[in-house]
Amino acid sequence: MTATDVPAPERTTAPGQATPAGGGSAAVPTGPVDTDVLRRFLDGAFAEQRDRCRAELPLDLFQPADHLSTAEHRDRTRDQLRRVVALGGHELGFSAAHGGGDDPGGQVSQFEMLGFGDASLMIKSGVQFGLFGGAVQALGTERHHAELLPRVLRLELLGCFAMTESEHGSDVAGLRTTATYDPAAQEFVIHSPDAGARKEYIGGAAEDAEVAVVFAQLETLGQRHGVHAFVVPLRRDGEALPGITLSDCGRKMGLNGVDNGRILFDSVRVPRTALLDRYAQVAEDGTYSSPIASANSRFFTMLGALVKGRVSISGGALSQTKVALAIALRHALTRRQFTRPGPDGAPAEEVLLMDYLSHQRRLLVPLATTYALSFAQDDLVQAMHEVVGAQLRGEEVDTVTQRAFETHAAGMKAVSSWHATATIQTCREACGGAGYLSENRLPQLKADSDIFTTFEGDNTVLLQLVAKSLLTRYKQQFSDLDTLGMARLATRDLISTVAGRSPARLLVQELVDSAPRNDVEGELRDRAWQLQMVRFREKHLVDTLAKRARKARGKSVGGSYDTLGGLQDHLVTAARSHVDRVVLEAFVAAIARCEDPAVKALLEQVCDLHALALLESHKGWYLQHRRMSPVRAKQVTHAVNETVNQLRPRTEELVAGFGIPDAWLGAVIAA
Amino acid sequence: MTATDVPAPERTTAPGQATPAGGGSAAVPTGPVDTDVLRRFLDGAFAEQRDRCRAELPLDLFQPADHLSTAEHRDRTRDQLRRVVALGGHELGFSAAHGGGDDPGGQVSQFEMLGFGDASLMIKSGVQFGLFGGAVQALGTERHHAELLPRVLRLELLGCFAMTESEHGSDVAGLRTTATYDPAAQEFVIHSPDAGARKEYIGGAAEDAEVAVVFAQLETLGQRHGVHAFVVPLRRDGEALPGITLSDCGRKMGLNGVDNGRILFDSVRVPRTALLDRYAQVAEDGTYSSPIASANSRFFTMLGALVKGRVSISGGALSQTKVALAIALRHALTRRQFTRPGPDGAPAEEVLLMDYLSHQRRLLVPLATTYALSFAQDDLVQAMHEVVGAQLRGEEVDTVTQRAFETHAAGMKAVSSWHATATIQTCREACGGAGYLSENRLPQLKADSDIFTTFEGDNTVLLQLVAKSLLTRYKQQFSDLDTLGMARLATRDLISTVAGRSPARLLVQELVDSAPRNDVEGELRDRAWQLQMVRFREKHLVDTLAKRARKARGKSVGGSYDTLGGLQDHLVTAARSHVDRVVLEAFVAAIARCEDPAVKALLEQVCDLHALALLESHKGWYLQHRRMSPVRAKQVTHAVNETVNQLRPRTEELVAGFGIPDAWLGAVIAA
Repeated sequence: MTATDVPAPERTTAPGQATPAGGGSAAVPTGPVDTDVLRRFLDGAFAEQRDRCRAELPLDLFQPADHLSTAEHRDRTRDQLRRVVALGGHELGFSAAHGGGDDPGGQVSQFEMLGFGDASLMIKSGVQFGLFGGAVQALGTERHHAELLPRVLRLELLGCFAMTESEHGSDVAGLRTTATYDPAAQEFVIHSPDAGARKEYIGGAAEDAEVAVVFAQLETLGQRHGVHAFVVPLRRDGEALPGITLSDCGRKMGLNGVDNGRILFDSVRVPRTALLDRYAQVAEDGTYSSPIASANSRFFTMLGALVKGRVSISGGALSQTKVALAIALRHALTRRQFTRPGPDGAPAEEVLLMDYLSHQRRLLVPLATTYALSFAQDDLVQAMHEVVGAQLRGEEVDTVTQRAFETHAAGMKAVSSWHATATIQTCREACGGAGYLSENRLPQLKADSDIFTTFEGDNTVLLQLVAKSLLTRYKQQFSDLDTLGMARLATRDLISTVAGRSPARLLVQELVDSAPRNDVEGELRDRAWQLQMVRFREKHLVDTLAKRARKARGKSVGGSYDTLGGLQDHLVTAARSHVDRVVLEAFVAAIARCEDPAVKALLEQVCDLHALALLESHKGWYLQHRRMSPVRAKQVTHAVNETVNQLRPRTEELVAGFGIPDAWLGAVIAA
Repeated sequence: MTATDVPAPERTTAPGQATPAGGGSAAVPTGPVDTDVLRRFLDGAFAEQRDRCRAELPLDLFQPADHLSTAEHRDRTRDQLRRVVALGGHELGFSAAHGGGDDPGGQVSQFEMLGFGDASLMIKSGVQFGLFGGAVQALGTERHHAELLPRVLRLELLGCFAMTESEHGSDVAGLRTTATYDPAAQEFVIHSPDAGARKEYIGGAAEDAEVAVVFAQLETLGQRHGVHAFVVPLRRDGEALPGITLSDCGRKMGLNGVDNGRILFDSVRVPRTALLDRYAQVAEDGTYSSPIASANSRFFTMLGALVKGRVSISGGALSQTKVALAIALRHALTRRQFTRPGPDGAPAEEVLLMDYLSHQRRLLVPLATTYALSFAQDDLVQAMHEVVGAQLRGEEVDTVTQRAFETHAAGMKAVSSWHATATIQTCREACGGAGYLSENRLPQLKADSDIFTTFEGDNTVLLQLVAKSLLTRYKQQFSDLDTLGMARLATRDLISTVAGRSPARLLVQELVDSAPRNDVEGELRDRAWQLQMVRFREKHLVDTLAKRARKARGKSVGGSYDTLGGLQDHLVTAARSHVDRVVLEAFVAAIARCEDPAVKALLEQVCDLHALALLESHKGWYLQHRRMSPVRAKQVTHAVNETVNQLRPRTEELVAGFGIPDAWLGAVIAA
């Protein structure tokens, strides 16, 4: 299918005349919603855990911290961590046998709730229970679990996650720290060959971590086996152990409650059992073995076991975004500027910021997209809950499901964190000078969340992974090999494969099929049309990417760098278009399961705004691919303006739906 | 003229085959440039002042400061201010009779050079010599000049600029602080009627300022005359004077070396002579008089006298952007990630970030635009030098020239500061984790410059002012009234009206006329075509804006809010398109006066990249208005990719052109 043989089904109806059709929203005004119902609906699958946090988390977690010195902020964060751990919740994602709750979804939901507060605490807790504890849980075996996890969960053993090096971050396979097995001593020797192999930006390494999970190139009997993880003690009584050189990354843009540091290893010896050996073992005599034959598969399986971190960051980014939007919207509902004449000679009145069209667009469009991403995030957390839950119970997860989940997590992490960066920036600017003051929290929200686009995988690199997985799926669809398995794959939605609920895809297909194609009115708000447009873009971008990749491969003698090197932008764009589609479908599926008519009607409007603004942001692409006429492009812009205007009186309700207790906003202008 | 009756002159030539035509760049590779020549060319009209700064400014100005506490940072900034003032340069913009240099361009150039360092010092110096001293110079008369300026210039009297209030910032006319004249005592009573009228975010008010220029509603003999400026003492020996309540805005996102504070006035009495009375006087008996009859004109004349601040911020924003780009580009030229196979079985090698197409686009496109904006800024500073210089000499500046300059300054301030915000964000992300560490300066560059989009006029509000001035010009062009004066205006470029050099407009016209319209090749790089496209967009947006405004006015009974309220987005877009055109023309004019063939050839390529990326960013608009075909839109993207690739080997030269001494970068990753 090419761009030209699919004429866009367009009408010249004015969008103002829209009527509901094919699942679209009503343009008629709807009554107010019960905001508790809306909030509970957004809370999703792990609502109980969220309510517990709302009731129990102490208020000081939600106060700005950027007036504190680095030392003071680290102290405050340590103190907060101890108090929050005492309340429980952090342990949920661990195996019940070792003090956990077999409930990874519950744990991530708690992490997301911490994202409404000072993100240093969220990340500090994430280092201990997600990265460090999570790696022990996912990559270790019973010996490690029994020995370490109970102490980890009680904060009696503080750890860190030493993967990134000064010269290798995104390219994990290129790490240069070595772990060489010495059969005589039955020890591994952990060593940094040079300064470029220094572990870098490691949360906890500067001051607190007593032990690290270190990623290093395993070598035994003269053979390299790639990157593996080892438990390596770093300090005792606050002092670095022999052979370990620790230093402090110092002040950062944000997250200064987290003590990031650097680690150099000078032939540090650890016992053979330090290897986290779920996916690979080294026998006493140095013999290497693994249930996974291919080194490449083994590498990706180990990394895949850690993907919960990406799910968490995606959720944390959305929480920080919600706080920023809540603050900026509250401000816009009280702040007035410039005068307009009163009606019929009445005295002039000052205009609320929220009554300016440009302000409505600036804030309500990202609000709508935040709703969309929240529903997609809820799907993702449930998928994670299934996959990681199965791993916890020692059950096998099939590779297709596992890879689909990883792809979805990578895409969501990238899109949510970029959304956070852009939206919080917009909120800062929309609050003017007030947005620049620390007392209004926006500076810290901006600074803390800024690194989310980088850590747990640089967004640009992650989206290239997503695109490569889309290409693989594409190839499989058209391959004659393994027809049975792949046909199954091709007809299933990636995410509905792993989510427990009825697949969104079926519903979406139904909507698309039921599109009243001769209906002249309301097409812009016709959900089927919106979905078709978004799906067309993904399909076209992936189709053409596959063609270009094939062509490039034909010309090239090298490996995947050469063949895809020139297609980077196309890879990233295709991946984003894929996530756009998944997110819109998640929103549509959520609306379909909403049982409250008023909430449902409001969400239809919010979904319209999200979808129309998405189409508007890509109008250049649609016009270029003759999928939108110039007239239609104009109508889309008009419809976005109309929809923000319709949603303007619903602002308070929509903010309430985020479920952030008033006292948690912690900003003077939102008090 | 409508969109449809102007078919886009398009060809289907591959851009790779481009040849120079009509002022376009050569696609052939050019030799290396003498980077000293390039730097001197970019230094522009005030090169000497810049060289002096490079030789004299102490290195500690260029070190990150965000590890300092607020108190330490304020102390450091105070100390730096004293040392920099001792070197001279800050006084240049003042009248020679009072210790100045009658050289406003020189002063702003020094301000721009400070923008390569810790921006707190730049802003602290800007408060004293730009806002405070500048207001005394521009709004005061000989009595004020003689009494205050010598002490201001020697830092013996520290001042602040108290305009913004808690509830009124953008809407200066709505300020609520009052200055009521008491004829019996021959004093003004300065008063804050309530908390909303509190002076807010005032740089210097928290700790250092001994005196303020206060903007307040002047009332005498029972009549209001609008906002005027008064010199009001705030503190003596560090203590607030009676009736003055001062408080501290506390920690901010950035610029923590500047002590922003709040001021409340409780019936504070100042002598009659406290009124800065250049544009309005109050006699002893309370009689109000002004050489400017209209209250509205008077208000805008007073504000216009302060527009040097916007010129300075535009320049400071560009300096901060250049530092960020220099750091990120240096990093990209040393940092390697991921491996590609060597040619013909040679060992694999890791790829420089700078060799990735996506990284080239991310950094070289903003670099090209930074070049473009620098040339436009140089024009603006020269225009300011003429206008403000004339004011200093007591000469009359005609209203048309003054308004044209103000419009240009407002537009440049908005576009440069948004460019800074976006580009520094990109640089942070492009440096990954390293970009998040304070030691690499990007966090502070981001945080400090973030407020540039807000202060000295919120960008969105400024662009609406620009658009309204374009509308006025549009109306005048088509009006029968005052045909002579307006015909003059219509045929002159706004900026060339005030700049000393030969007008860019003539050159541009020549290029447009000489376009070889039947040339099949090279059109994308044909400067005339690029200019036509950019001018078409401006013209179309202003034409349609004027039509919509006329239509809205016909329907409305109210004033300007009602008629333009629904057109906000159109106003902002039209204004940006205007600035886009002015900036591109400035670049073209700069190239035309470049006498070094190698530098000229390089700048042609940089201009191509800027122009093509600009067209690409608006491709949706051009497609929608049938001014670009889908094929052409694709070609533009291809040409951008090709041009970043051509410029990739020129990266070091282009960074050197910014003229930032190595030691000034102050970032570990750029060392």
